[in-house]
Amino acid sequence: MAKKNEKLIVQKYGGSSVANPERIKKVAERVKEYKKKGYDVVVVVSALGDTTDDLLELASKITQKPLERELDMLMSTGEQISVALLAMALHEIGTSAISFTGAQVGILTDSAHTKARIIDISAKRIIEEIKKGKVVIVAGFQGVNLNQEITTLGRGGSDMTAVALAKVLNAGTCEIYTDVEGIYTTDPRIVQNARKLASISYDEMLEMASLGAQVMQARSIEAAGKYDIPLHVRSSFSKNTGTMICKEGKDMEDVLVRGVALNKGEAKITVCDVSDKPGEASRLFEGLANAGINVDMIIQNISRTGATDISFTVSSADLTKVQDVLAGLKNKIGTGEIKLDKEIAKVSVVGIGMRSHAGVAAKMFKALASKKINIDMISTSEIKISCVIKKSDAETAVKVLHDAFELDKPGKNKK
Amino acid sequence: MAKKNEKLIVQKYGGSSVANPERIKKVAERVKEYKKKGYDVVVVVSALGDTTDDLLELASKITQKPLERELDMLMSTGEQISVALLAMALHEIGTSAISFTGAQVGILTDSAHTKARIIDISAKRIIEEIKKGKVVIVAGFQGVNLNQEITTLGRGGSDMTAVALAKVLNAGTCEIYTDVEGIYTTDPRIVQNARKLASISYDEMLEMASLGAQVMQARSIEAAGKYDIPLHVRSSFSKNTGTMICKEGKDMEDVLVRGVALNKGEAKITVCDVSDKPGEASRLFEGLANAGINVDMIIQNISRTGATDISFTVSSADLTKVQDVLAGLKNKIGTGEIKLDKEIAKVSVVGIGMRSHAGVAAKMFKALASKKINIDMISTSEIKISCVIKKSDAETAVKVLHDAFELDKPGKNKK
Repeated sequence: MAKKNEKLIVQKYGGSSVANPERIKKVAERVKEYKKKGYDVVVVVSALGDTTDDLLELASKITQKPLERELDMLMSTGEQISVALLAMALHEIGTSAISFTGAQVGILTDSAHTKARIIDISAKRIIEEIKKGKVVIVAGFQGVNLNQEITTLGRGGSDMTAVALAKVLNAGTCEIYTDVEGIYTTDPRIVQNARKLASISYDEMLEMASLGAQVMQARSIEAAGKYDIPLHVRSSFSKNTGTMICKEGKDMEDVLVRGVALNKGEAKITVCDVSDKPGEASRLFEGLANAGINVDMIIQNISRTGATDISFTVSSADLTKVQDVLAGLKNKIGTGEIKLDKEIAKVSVVGIGMRSHAGVAAKMFKALASKKINIDMISTSEIKISCVIKKSDAETAVKVLHDAFELDKPGKNKK
Repeated sequence: MAKKNEKLIVQKYGGSSVANPERIKKVAERVKEYKKKGYDVVVVVSALGDTTDDLLELASKITQKPLERELDMLMSTGEQISVALLAMALHEIGTSAISFTGAQVGILTDSAHTKARIIDISAKRIIEEIKKGKVVIVAGFQGVNLNQEITTLGRGGSDMTAVALAKVLNAGTCEIYTDVEGIYTTDPRIVQNARKLASISYDEMLEMASLGAQVMQARSIEAAGKYDIPLHVRSSFSKNTGTMICKEGKDMEDVLVRGVALNKGEAKITVCDVSDKPGEASRLFEGLANAGINVDMIIQNISRTGATDISFTVSSADLTKVQDVLAGLKNKIGTGEIKLDKEIAKVSVVGIGMRSHAGVAAKMFKALASKKINIDMISTSEIKISCVIKKSDAETAVKVLHDAFELDKPGKNKK
């Protein structure tokens, strides 16, 4: 890998950081400070505040099934507005800057509209402008395919733009500016003494992100990990140091549990009396996969009668699609009753230290039991344990787990 | 010139025609009808209703002097939103369509940001999509320069996009859809019996447009005339035939006066006691030209004392700039008092028949005199006569001229 250019910094500002002209001016001031300190700055910007939602609403008034190519054409305007305004704001305070769309800087993607993947970035134009002493502002979230069609990278895609630019430019630092101070041991709105983490490993953050701590797009964390690009997640409203998302160091493994994540966006489905023959369950999940539905946890009850009950969880947003698929399969497979439970929550503890240490699960179950919280489903990976519980128990569960693992105290919770 | 393809129609829809989702759906229905009749349709769309003004306001909250390159980056998003939404609307009613930005269809312009001129259009991509049977929707008002920077063509620039596409595609017809039924003998809000014209020559329309009848961008009419592209100006809210802007035919020359135009957007400046030496006046107007100020009419009073008074009119929007220039010149040239008059209006009669016929001026002055309207300045061209009068007399003047030349009656007002 090429040597990193410590003078070059990539900064990504999320939608809330550029929600209105006043905030855009604040971002410009911050960029100017870094420029004055001698950094070359490449800025990636998201769409202003609610622009993306406003555009989606406009489209929904015309059609319920917009063509994805046209949706990308529409959505990409949001970031184009942001970059132009930020360039103006920088110029206004005497800092030379130039804005670019994804197409203009050659952010080449595949053709999977609304969820495209970056294939390559031609950094030529960016480097030219940096050499002229300009701040380069790039529209996040967007690119073009080989046919010059505009594509977008999915929700949170601006993170991916920042990570990809940091890689291709060998940036010394990649900062992700958001409206929170960093990554916390858990949601501070639930647990008052939640603690801001100094650092978290890519793998841990990935689990935290996919489990419901919505600070960064999961794909971007994955990419940052793959290319070893440390990310500094911090607030655009303060000067405080945030959280480093980075490679796991030796000392990081000492910590058993890094954080507690909560996800209230899933629902549980139980398909009763599935014939207990080989292949029946696979036909069920094949049907769901073909419909593009991501199944999270799966539990198959012990069969006593030759038929079995299968429970699984999916994102609540997919519930209607799931019901359609199941209705279609009912006759083919011959299942019994289908039960829905929307009143569930998934609470998880995450930490790379678990890999080499037993006892975390026991401690977790004990803590939940102490509050009489019933565990409905369990799933584990090397670095996390998740439990499905009643939605009404969610906040209590997070609190008791945060306490049990003493996450408010930085020195504690070690092997 | 290549033979025209009568099967191919270019339609341009202005901002009011696509102001909201309902109207966009109406436009889609109309496009579909033409498609069903067997036409290949290329559609040019402006930004939704007030989008352009909204974007300008956003920029004005950040800076009073936006960089023009960034302004183009910002403004061009308006049309991109429109084309995407119209493509969705067409798809929704079962008509295959594809949207493009100016950059995507290779609308190459010079680098004069905010007022760029089209140099070339690579029609390749458009023709490909037409051959696939698709309606091609192109963002109006925008292009790119050789360096892939986004440019815009100035207010009303979507008209130019339509004319340029009609030329490069050899379209049989170019329709300009707007919120009025066509071109009228004068403003129907002032004169109730103003008559919709069946046709008007390019030159006449150019005078009408530049004199204040703001239906089409002057540059676009000029270009249409140069390439002999007949334009059908009509309403997107009805099926009525509108007005053809076309080459002047023999019969068109029979009409002395085609219409009466009114412009209330100018102001008059009088610079007193300019030294009556050769070159003094030229220094004055050189100074104004260098500041990018367009001077319309000029009158120099007869000098009796070795000094002279010079009066001229400019767009009211330039008034502050004019005052700055004059203040700077005052000491250099040594002028006397500077008088401003914002309470003026310019009323004009336009018609190609004037070229070969005297007496129009006399009839005009007599009509104005009959209402005791004082004429302050006069200017003429081959096909128009303009008089500056008091703003408070403007509507009366238009009415009396419309009556005097019997413009409400199609058969009248001939040589």
